[in-house]
Amino acid sequence: MDIKIIKTTQPKEKQAAEKLAFGVTFSDHMFVMDYTEGQGWHDPVIMPYGPIQLMPSSMVLHYAQEVFEGLKAYKTPQGEVQLFRPEENFKRMNRSNERMCIPQLDEEFVMNALKTLVKMDQDWIPTSPGTSLYIRPFIFATDPFIGVRVSQTYKFMIIMSPVGSYYKGGLAPCRIYVEDEYARTVRGGTGEAKCGGNYAGGLAAQEKVHVKGYEQILWLDGEKRQYIEEVGTSNVFFLIDGVFVTPSLEGTILSGITRKSVIELLKSWGETVVERRITIDEFYELHQQGKIQEAFATGTAAVISPIGTLGWQDKEMTFNNGEIGEYTQKIYDTLYGVQSGHIKDTLNWIVRV
Amino acid sequence: MDIKIIKTTQPKEKQAAEKLAFGVTFSDHMFVMDYTEGQGWHDPVIMPYGPIQLMPSSMVLHYAQEVFEGLKAYKTPQGEVQLFRPEENFKRMNRSNERMCIPQLDEEFVMNALKTLVKMDQDWIPTSPGTSLYIRPFIFATDPFIGVRVSQTYKFMIIMSPVGSYYKGGLAPCRIYVEDEYARTVRGGTGEAKCGGNYAGGLAAQEKVHVKGYEQILWLDGEKRQYIEEVGTSNVFFLIDGVFVTPSLEGTILSGITRKSVIELLKSWGETVVERRITIDEFYELHQQGKIQEAFATGTAAVISPIGTLGWQDKEMTFNNGEIGEYTQKIYDTLYGVQSGHIKDTLNWIVRV
Repeated sequence: MDIKIIKTTQPKEKQAAEKLAFGVTFSDHMFVMDYTEGQGWHDPVIMPYGPIQLMPSSMVLHYAQEVFEGLKAYKTPQGEVQLFRPEENFKRMNRSNERMCIPQLDEEFVMNALKTLVKMDQDWIPTSPGTSLYIRPFIFATDPFIGVRVSQTYKFMIIMSPVGSYYKGGLAPCRIYVEDEYARTVRGGTGEAKCGGNYAGGLAAQEKVHVKGYEQILWLDGEKRQYIEEVGTSNVFFLIDGVFVTPSLEGTILSGITRKSVIELLKSWGETVVERRITIDEFYELHQQGKIQEAFATGTAAVISPIGTLGWQDKEMTFNNGEIGEYTQKIYDTLYGVQSGHIKDTLNWIVRV
Repeated sequence: MDIKIIKTTQPKEKQAAEKLAFGVTFSDHMFVMDYTEGQGWHDPVIMPYGPIQLMPSSMVLHYAQEVFEGLKAYKTPQGEVQLFRPEENFKRMNRSNERMCIPQLDEEFVMNALKTLVKMDQDWIPTSPGTSLYIRPFIFATDPFIGVRVSQTYKFMIIMSPVGSYYKGGLAPCRIYVEDEYARTVRGGTGEAKCGGNYAGGLAAQEKVHVKGYEQILWLDGEKRQYIEEVGTSNVFFLIDGVFVTPSLEGTILSGITRKSVIELLKSWGETVVERRITIDEFYELHQQGKIQEAFATGTAAVISPIGTLGWQDKEMTFNNGEIGEYTQKIYDTLYGVQSGHIKDTLNWIVRV
């Protein structure tokens, strides 16, 4: 299948690096491909970024049959363009597709499409510290039909946005609140899939903690409201008495690519990482004993977010005196260093474009 | 706020009643209104039904911040146009909006918009038995932004589809399977909201039971996997030893308008209706004792769906010898009779257009 290429005749002006926000401006081109039952994925095209037409009856607008991914492209100091573990994104997208009854992608084909698109828009990759080109592959159901069933047509798109730091002001410890009213998901739900519904469902809790003076939520499991699962839209790690602990993937937690990379990185340093279930009661007890040394969240958008304070009911736990932990900083520096080409990629994470 | 009206210059051809499926064809016009933070809902317009333009970065395509409603318009034998309890839909939509962080609608204004739209397209209301004009109000987030937060812009639309019976072949007992792997929602989740994510999340279970030879799922609660919650996208009722039982609304079940109407109707007949929690174990026990007399699902699309057989693990329970129960038929006949204007509306459910 050849990718048709339609180049823009009106290249847009690029924003200055210091003005870049997250996910607001988009590069000149996008990739689009359609799926029709019986025909498979067809008509791949790279075309100027712009609006799409949808029928108001399109299933995505009613039943949210949709999945997405997020990854980043960087330009190295030598001017080479590189992606961070992109094959992991397409693998995960296919797992999300399976849960959401969306047809599988040919991972090799979309990887090639992604590289072609990034190459075309490589001038859009910002190079100032902390910046990157955020890449958003996504799929949504397009059947113009309002009965509840699996769609027979889909659109797969890749759009790209030059971004500054996810959190304005750069790496800084954030305040997180343990959510005990709302639930993100439950065993047998869609928690493991990167689908829209998980994110829409979490907005109310996010709004609630903002009002309380916190930036994000720490989600507990939906069943017992005890086991620590995720922080907002990120995975979470704790350094407990010299050992790194992160919640094990039990089907309700997103299998983060940054999570996986942090585990590999720590092991390569000879550190001990334990993936296990951990309750908020146990965590509080450990904090009382002074054993929680560092806490941080991991995700593609922010890479690493140090957690300074964790609110739970009427209590507040502070880690490392509310400052960025030594390991937290080192993990961020290393990951971002490898991603941006400032540090050697010893773990084979980088794919050159 | 005045509604701008743009009439179609190319009215579409209507399908013959016997060819009508569910949710495939749409009437000539649609209602559209936009929301912008700081400005509120604005620019209401009735215009020809047709495609809309969306940026690929529109939040609905990524994070599924979206809600919908469903109701029906009928033409009575006297040629009057009527709606079934439309105010209940807009009340519920505002409750869904609250859960999904979508701004509130002015219920009186959208009711007026709905009536204006239905009046304009009243020739689209089919009149053969079992047919109606299905009305779909829906709202979705339109911010061209791919960070995870509440959208600041939305689109509210009403589209309308002339429909035949939801289940081809008319009222017939269906085969339902008790889902014990997938979960629809959990306490603190979005189960009570009519939002897209609930429906996308349920597709995998629906596909699974189709393969097993069943038409729909009976959902259990996400926490204990014991309490009966809903059937597919409908509420569920059982006639147990002379008493009607339906799961109580505990925050995880959609507060169905047909459910509410069935309760009111049964009470008006002097029947006993109990809203309570009921486990699948208790239900099975009652069935073994021969106490389950009838079972049916209630929803706007199908009105009443008799349940003939309920599969659970390796067991099968059959009700009323797999035939439509006497009460089930009477409830359907009465509800549909009132909705379509063939039976007097003694409970004040009907709103004339």
